[in-house]
Amino acid sequence: MADAASPSPGDSPRSPLDGSRGLSRRALLGGAAAVAGAAAVAGGAGFAAGRETAGLPASATYPFFGAHQSGIVTPQQDRLHFAAFDITTDSRDRVIALLRRWTEAASRLMTGSDLGSGAAGGSYAAPPDDTGEALGLPASGLTITFGFGPGLFDERFGLEDLRPAQLIDLPGFAGDTLDERFTGGDLCIQACADDPQVAVHAIRNLSRIAFGDAAIRWAQLGFGRTSSTTRAQDTPRNFMGFKDGTANVRAEDSDLIDRWVWADAADGQAWMAGGSYMVARRIRILAEIWDRTSLGEQEATVGRTKGTGAPLSGGAEFTEPDFGRLGSDGQPLIRPTSHVALAHPSAHGGARMLRRGYNFTDGADALGRLDAGLFFLAFVRDPREQFVPVQNALSSSDVMTIDYLRTTGSALFAVPAGVPAGSTLGDGGAFVGEALFAS
Amino acid sequence: MADAASPSPGDSPRSPLDGSRGLSRRALLGGAAAVAGAAAVAGGAGFAAGRETAGLPASATYPFFGAHQSGIVTPQQDRLHFAAFDITTDSRDRVIALLRRWTEAASRLMTGSDLGSGAAGGSYAAPPDDTGEALGLPASGLTITFGFGPGLFDERFGLEDLRPAQLIDLPGFAGDTLDERFTGGDLCIQACADDPQVAVHAIRNLSRIAFGDAAIRWAQLGFGRTSSTTRAQDTPRNFMGFKDGTANVRAEDSDLIDRWVWADAADGQAWMAGGSYMVARRIRILAEIWDRTSLGEQEATVGRTKGTGAPLSGGAEFTEPDFGRLGSDGQPLIRPTSHVALAHPSAHGGARMLRRGYNFTDGADALGRLDAGLFFLAFVRDPREQFVPVQNALSSSDVMTIDYLRTTGSALFAVPAGVPAGSTLGDGGAFVGEALFAS
Repeated sequence: MADAASPSPGDSPRSPLDGSRGLSRRALLGGAAAVAGAAAVAGGAGFAAGRETAGLPASATYPFFGAHQSGIVTPQQDRLHFAAFDITTDSRDRVIALLRRWTEAASRLMTGSDLGSGAAGGSYAAPPDDTGEALGLPASGLTITFGFGPGLFDERFGLEDLRPAQLIDLPGFAGDTLDERFTGGDLCIQACADDPQVAVHAIRNLSRIAFGDAAIRWAQLGFGRTSSTTRAQDTPRNFMGFKDGTANVRAEDSDLIDRWVWADAADGQAWMAGGSYMVARRIRILAEIWDRTSLGEQEATVGRTKGTGAPLSGGAEFTEPDFGRLGSDGQPLIRPTSHVALAHPSAHGGARMLRRGYNFTDGADALGRLDAGLFFLAFVRDPREQFVPVQNALSSSDVMTIDYLRTTGSALFAVPAGVPAGSTLGDGGAFVGEALFAS
Repeated sequence: MADAASPSPGDSPRSPLDGSRGLSRRALLGGAAAVAGAAAVAGGAGFAAGRETAGLPASATYPFFGAHQSGIVTPQQDRLHFAAFDITTDSRDRVIALLRRWTEAASRLMTGSDLGSGAAGGSYAAPPDDTGEALGLPASGLTITFGFGPGLFDERFGLEDLRPAQLIDLPGFAGDTLDERFTGGDLCIQACADDPQVAVHAIRNLSRIAFGDAAIRWAQLGFGRTSSTTRAQDTPRNFMGFKDGTANVRAEDSDLIDRWVWADAADGQAWMAGGSYMVARRIRILAEIWDRTSLGEQEATVGRTKGTGAPLSGGAEFTEPDFGRLGSDGQPLIRPTSHVALAHPSAHGGARMLRRGYNFTDGADALGRLDAGLFFLAFVRDPREQFVPVQNALSSSDVMTIDYLRTTGSALFAVPAGVPAGSTLGDGGAFVGEALFAS
């Protein structure tokens, strides 16, 4: 029996999902429910809208625009979805167009909006612009950070002379057991949020937008942060059970951030001013072996207590280690081969890194052991002076690194500056990395 | 220079981590910090303890003991770590001992406590009983649910005659593309929590406790729930972008729960009274194909709108679908081959399931596509009457299942009743599944 008021797809007065440009996802849902209610056979649309937003936690929203990209000194979110991409086109113009699409999409996603096309009459006959799994979820502190790998500077795009000297091919480190499935990439996106569904939604939709121009080479989900980027955050624990990131540079340390994180035009490539370099290392922890080690040996290996994270030379978590302090046996309380001693800035000319890593687990391996560890992410001004010497010291002398860790993935990316506030996006508009292509 | 007051591992007055049986993780840290403070060279222990608990959200704690295991009708938590195990011993007594250790550990973990041994003089010379990565984290609503796969009833343990008829070997369904890496298991543990680090910590430590008797066969991390088990929760979205679980049985539907979830002694095996059967299916969503489908076709395939989740016959999300209602073209507004029509209880003698699934993503495949989908979990009283007929209908006629889904993993477990309140645990004490071994 026909009914002209029925909301069938062909003749419904409801707005399709994508006719809502600029509305937040939660505002959109309220609107959609109201419109649907007008056409509904029975009432109840208000009830549905009410359920939709019930019980959601307060959610941070970070600005996309600024001198630097977000997701670096931003208070570190709890969840990560990272993806490295291969560029699959040889066209410089298509790479630029992709970066424009990514820029515009990221600016929308970070507000908690969907990727609605806003096309007049967007219809049931077309695929939705957004995949939809984040509908109803708030911004959740989402940040999206884009990076450029060495492959962007190969012969395909005429950018060879603009490759920063800092964007090295990372050397092989002793003990590395790299797996091609977790290594390299021409481009990368780091999506961090307090809700994993929001981070995954971002990577999924940005990957979709790249179709034909770039494809995911590898990806990594992180479920718990392993450092803090502001003093307001507590220090989390890694899969070895120890606090991680106690000595991290924090956003409040603006002098240190300027000195050790942000690139400067004088560093070589002017287009990288305001940017940074992201080191990504997938480090499996040999948990079964570590877990059979005594508490005393674990603490000696780290150089800190497991409970509070205090250095073994005494004090509390944030007390500076005293490497000269001897115990009753006449030996240093902190072993010279401990992780904290070998990685300490005093051993590397004061060099610091802004760490932003995550715990991961990717199921079990063929022996029934959890494939789990630390997805190390760090932002540095010059990997040659910051990451590489520290890693060389760890790879050659650190008991933790040698006996209990296996690095299975590795990549380095140049992270360009942010898109300035007030920029116009879209066709012909601003985009992340514009200074590189204008150089 | 020696210093008798120095907190070196050999001569420290600090308590080792494991001397704290019965304390919660957060209480433990306060205590440890206070003790460490007494030995600290400099002050600051109070500061460390203060940071430790700052900013943590309110956290639910669910009881371990009860007529039923937790993690079934419990309000569905946001995160999952699921693991299936192979039993690696042929000894019935060792299986019983393992279940006793698991039971005691689960009862502690669910309170937010660590696995401290409490052994007198627990020392730096021994490995910590707990791996430590959840130190400082609250209970986070953790539930731990144990299940028994068909392998527990093979010739090894003398339990052949006690295998429930409901614990079938699941039939092959049309279109299944099962991967041995995600299929089967003699035992399983479902750990759900609102913090993934807490869920992963539970599986890691329970796996460690099983060493020598059982090993992880496969595991799955889930990052977002795809259903609700109480009416107080909103309906989340799956990776197809649609609300999932709108028609789920909820804990408030006690008559339906009794009818369709809890096993009864009269069902066959008396030891399963108060238990249930858990169906686990790892379903990959062919997102790239789905995402190229028009909104109209997506909605017709599901039988609901993408925005509010209302049935296409009209109304709001929780309006009952009206399969007889015709549109202006004289055709049913809800296609007979839509997912909602084929899975509806009215098509299966009223059969219902308690769904408790999760979204997952496990990186990218060799083609750069996200390996993502739905980890379907459902609790039923009899898989033969509830899951199997519905899945047969979907596998043969459901456009969604046939065109857009690939089931890559599958398992079925008997989930025994809970451990009654007031039980004594430990050597000779009560354990999950005791009624089976006493039968």
